[in-house]
Amino acid sequence: MMSSASVSPVEQIAPPVELSKPLSINERQLMTPGPTNVSQRVLKACGLPVVNHMDPQFFKVLRDVSAGIRYVFQTRNQYSLAITGSGTCAMETAICNLLERGDTFLVLSHGLWGERVALIGRKRGYNVVELKIDKLGDVFSLKQIEEAIVEHKPKVLYVCHGDSSVGTLQPMDNIGRVCHQNGCLLLVDAVVSLCSAPLDTDRLDIDVVYCAAQKALSGPPGVSMISLNDNAVRHIKNRRTDVDSYYMDINWLAKAWGLDDDNNHQFVYHYTPAVSLMYGLREALAMVAEEGLSHTVDRHMKSSLIVQKHISSLGLKFLVEKPEHRLPPILSVLIPNDVNGNEVIKHLLDFYNITIAGGLGPTAGKIWRIGFLGVNANDQSVGVLCRALSDAIADQRKKSPKL
Amino acid sequence: MMSSASVSPVEQIAPPVELSKPLSINERQLMTPGPTNVSQRVLKACGLPVVNHMDPQFFKVLRDVSAGIRYVFQTRNQYSLAITGSGTCAMETAICNLLERGDTFLVLSHGLWGERVALIGRKRGYNVVELKIDKLGDVFSLKQIEEAIVEHKPKVLYVCHGDSSVGTLQPMDNIGRVCHQNGCLLLVDAVVSLCSAPLDTDRLDIDVVYCAAQKALSGPPGVSMISLNDNAVRHIKNRRTDVDSYYMDINWLAKAWGLDDDNNHQFVYHYTPAVSLMYGLREALAMVAEEGLSHTVDRHMKSSLIVQKHISSLGLKFLVEKPEHRLPPILSVLIPNDVNGNEVIKHLLDFYNITIAGGLGPTAGKIWRIGFLGVNANDQSVGVLCRALSDAIADQRKKSPKL
Repeated sequence: MMSSASVSPVEQIAPPVELSKPLSINERQLMTPGPTNVSQRVLKACGLPVVNHMDPQFFKVLRDVSAGIRYVFQTRNQYSLAITGSGTCAMETAICNLLERGDTFLVLSHGLWGERVALIGRKRGYNVVELKIDKLGDVFSLKQIEEAIVEHKPKVLYVCHGDSSVGTLQPMDNIGRVCHQNGCLLLVDAVVSLCSAPLDTDRLDIDVVYCAAQKALSGPPGVSMISLNDNAVRHIKNRRTDVDSYYMDINWLAKAWGLDDDNNHQFVYHYTPAVSLMYGLREALAMVAEEGLSHTVDRHMKSSLIVQKHISSLGLKFLVEKPEHRLPPILSVLIPNDVNGNEVIKHLLDFYNITIAGGLGPTAGKIWRIGFLGVNANDQSVGVLCRALSDAIADQRKKSPKL
Repeated sequence: MMSSASVSPVEQIAPPVELSKPLSINERQLMTPGPTNVSQRVLKACGLPVVNHMDPQFFKVLRDVSAGIRYVFQTRNQYSLAITGSGTCAMETAICNLLERGDTFLVLSHGLWGERVALIGRKRGYNVVELKIDKLGDVFSLKQIEEAIVEHKPKVLYVCHGDSSVGTLQPMDNIGRVCHQNGCLLLVDAVVSLCSAPLDTDRLDIDVVYCAAQKALSGPPGVSMISLNDNAVRHIKNRRTDVDSYYMDINWLAKAWGLDDDNNHQFVYHYTPAVSLMYGLREALAMVAEEGLSHTVDRHMKSSLIVQKHISSLGLKFLVEKPEHRLPPILSVLIPNDVNGNEVIKHLLDFYNITIAGGLGPTAGKIWRIGFLGVNANDQSVGVLCRALSDAIADQRKKSPKL
């Protein structure tokens, strides 16, 4: 019975029975394009006490994260910060700051991510020109890119460095030069490639690049990173119209991170960030700094070569034919005709607690996508994966022998 | 020296020294308008293993969170889900789904949050009509609201239920009725009021309401909640133009949460959510379900009455004159002339490790904002707060005795 002092009316909706049981989660070995497994050090940081976002202790975390982003992106960009939101939030943030309604936006699509960017661009009212790859698994040549830029004269070119939906790694050399010779800004998606393949932001003349924490950094999902050079910042400051989002407005984000010169490096309230995830990201960045970026990248390549060799030894083929165009930490493997792809995925989960992914859209049912990002890029993890894969495929072939 | 097998170029940017020291955070007693302290149960959940966002274990978490949101919002709304982003992200999500360029948007501003909403509306190209309160600390009368609706014929009315910047609680009775009689949708900001003051979404005919986790729920910052009734969903499905954000598109969000009828309750990939924060939110919602929503609300009111009585006994006044218009969990206290407000804030932090907040904008330097949200709404916490406040003020008066 409610007490007479109660200020609340009688509840019309009863407490849900689903919530009466405590949460329990069985850990998986996440050999997918992400999220990947999160180290104990990062998880422990996520569980540190929450402090106020305007606490000097938290400002120190922001400064550390900024420095870590500059390091992993290999850039001196002042505007280097993290976003409370997924990699897609960073993607949309980049787009809506660089472009205005009616602007021409050239999007290279060698997989799902270009398609998503083109969709966002159309939703926001830009003149989107989407250059689709002729054959999935291929990448664009510099000549194709240059011709498209000259023809369409875009304000911004979008390039996905590593496309996790097909497993391609787009070569990046000279794209920045071609863009700048034609008055175009270069926007690069490095969500899965950063720390797993070489990408030097400054050396490659990239104007804006973004990444997510839950990939090669082994950070928690829900937080992403972005870095903009002076060229991009000047472009944004000179927009004809205001940025049409508040949450994603880079001017506000830079103030909140104490990075805008106008604010003399004061931290200004913008919105309440995911304090716990920023702690986790800080530790994930620290772990790469301790290992050394080059070694982190090399470790991913070493694991990739082991898995590629094993997959070839099983007689399987890759969607991406040329080895130099394969995204090191995520391999797209063609499912052979005599094997039920979903049953292999199920076998890996049931017998080894390993999660791998299938294809998306046009590759659904045709490929497996096998990832070994961050803490999973090591001899032991990929060794277990290789043995499990052999077993799962052999089991399938035993059950339905080739006619 | 780099090995010859290295795929990575020599690093131009060295690992930052800031990251060589491990992260350490001193816990504070957070008696601010939020974030508030997070319980050990919620922090522990945030540290559970990360699984893939398409793992059936995670779909169960999403279903639980949806059920919890329906309970705390007291609604049967199908579209009840959480967002990876702060309360401001939920705010912008609500706005950009309900409105289209050129639409008239009536915003009631009795503090900072109305101003922020008006700013977002202008950025996105709506015809924003901002009704500002005559005197800070007051709330709007139903008559004022009705007259403004009749005059401006808005598509959407925004009302902030509890404004944490000034400490006002806007009465909500009959606003929904007046809106619907005039063909207007009612959008309510319940970021700080939900679970700390009575707010029954369905009974009050609210079309869209949102909240953030780090307030009365004592959840982690960086995740927010939104609930839309059938009226709002129908309105969105019948828009003339596409929603101009992908990240914030409620159609996509509903598919990702298995809530859209078109998808027969399948979970569709939209973006990678903050898996760890969803775990934490699930536990925070479960704790309210266990305590009972009415009791949670009553507990906040009980704490508020204790603090209000103590503040009055110190001879201090409130910005919000009428007790019934005071936001229970966040009290705005006028700083007396004979006391240095910043020194009191510093004293509380230095001697008691208690964080309280100052004013914002027009109230900067004029008020303290004292909060006791979620786990801090209890006799012991507010007892310590009251004693600390007495001490800090007495200390100030001793140092600079009234002339």
